[in-house]
Amino acid sequence: MSQANDTRPTLRVIKIGGNVINNADLLQRFLVDISNIEGPFILVHGGGNIATTVAEQMGIQQTLVDGRRITNAETLRVAVMVYAGLINKTIVANLQALNCQAMGFTGADGNLVRSTKRVSTEIDFGFVGDVEVSGINVAKFSEIIHSGTVPVICSITHDGRGTLLNTNADTMAARIAVALASPFQVNLTFCFEQVGVLSEPSNPASLLTTLSKSACENLKATGAVTAGMIPKLDNAFWAFEQGVSSVSICHAQHIASASAKFIGTTLV
Amino acid sequence: MSQANDTRPTLRVIKIGGNVINNADLLQRFLVDISNIEGPFILVHGGGNIATTVAEQMGIQQTLVDGRRITNAETLRVAVMVYAGLINKTIVANLQALNCQAMGFTGADGNLVRSTKRVSTEIDFGFVGDVEVSGINVAKFSEIIHSGTVPVICSITHDGRGTLLNTNADTMAARIAVALASPFQVNLTFCFEQVGVLSEPSNPASLLTTLSKSACENLKATGAVTAGMIPKLDNAFWAFEQGVSSVSICHAQHIASASAKFIGTTLV
Repeated sequence: MSQANDTRPTLRVIKIGGNVINNADLLQRFLVDISNIEGPFILVHGGGNIATTVAEQMGIQQTLVDGRRITNAETLRVAVMVYAGLINKTIVANLQALNCQAMGFTGADGNLVRSTKRVSTEIDFGFVGDVEVSGINVAKFSEIIHSGTVPVICSITHDGRGTLLNTNADTMAARIAVALASPFQVNLTFCFEQVGVLSEPSNPASLLTTLSKSACENLKATGAVTAGMIPKLDNAFWAFEQGVSSVSICHAQHIASASAKFIGTTLV
Repeated sequence: MSQANDTRPTLRVIKIGGNVINNADLLQRFLVDISNIEGPFILVHGGGNIATTVAEQMGIQQTLVDGRRITNAETLRVAVMVYAGLINKTIVANLQALNCQAMGFTGADGNLVRSTKRVSTEIDFGFVGDVEVSGINVAKFSEIIHSGTVPVICSITHDGRGTLLNTNADTMAARIAVALASPFQVNLTFCFEQVGVLSEPSNPASLLTTLSKSACENLKATGAVTAGMIPKLDNAFWAFEQGVSSVSICHAQHIASASAKFIGTTLV
């Protein structure tokens, strides 16, 4: 796709995974790297395993149904405290110390991300919110970005009626990227603890530098991509098909690598 | 003071106390009232006793030295979780549901409020930050207010070097009001659980509708104002002397009363 005549400004949307957040040294190196990024970006984060630790300290039992975590009222309170409080503000304070003009948000702030409480079917997931592109406040995000501010947004959203909801951070990053692909040329990057998509699990040498949708379907069929990766890849391909200019998956420590020597997987 | 030729726009700075935050019904009524305020305002809040409850649930001991609370690293984490996470985002989500375009912040967000870690003397207070007027980011606050956003700011600040600090919310409200008294005509209101300053403790009928500094000194001398009220009054008079157009103290349920029938204490 030629972008020579594309007058939209560029914007990076960067999602960091829980394993980066869980490791204070890795997180700090990541923040140093992104503070050196030229041009505007948005950072999207979840909560790692800190929320689980805090819930255990508070004596709150994690409820699992068919292996899936339920967000009851007490679990939501912990998620809001940990994601929107502890993690979000730790990231913002550290970015500010690196002269990066960051501001931390949930989806409720400025009505940035509105979601819909998931309807119970066989399983009642509790206070979980699903986000559509229409729930992203493009005007407010654009205003914040044009003011020179870096939005740091955690995966807590709201329903517009006063209820906060726990949201999947990968999906949220994909929805934000697609919604902002109208005013911006968006580059979406999912950062996690592996070098990218591997054709052989646990073998970094098997890194696939590019990945097409058909190749991805083959990897799923052979079981080469693990269950945890599949929703991330589905979000990534969905965003790419919906107008995001480029989508990549890489290790957090490779976020700042120039595109010429990018280490990771780029969707094609 | 004639304000007939004052071209500065008006701005209300409203501080809510812990007793309002501790009572969900009172808080919700208060949010309904302020959502109906015409013109821009800033809401400043602390954490009430929810932080103490969460710390107890997590098994974190409160450390008191000479009756004063120490903010060690664990207590700071809880304060950040509760003030910046749970309380701030609950307020923002509820204001959004009332069509009030609120955004929640700490002092780290946008470098809005920078503080200095208190130097240890006889007592090491730990992660406590003192705020001066020079630490308030007047340009960023003005930008946010002029964009039509209501800043909801909790009493967590930062030192600009990556450390979050616990700050007195009354002092923070006074410093913000004074710093913003340059571009705005500021009306500062401290909301708490009494109708205002009383000449006889616990007798609401003894409400003083106006209070001068000399009258206040008399109340202190006679013991009519309690120890907890003295720092609030000192902050209030300091702000009034430093150029804030009007300063008042009232019950949270009287915040929306028109100035003609204001119930509370106005400094003179």
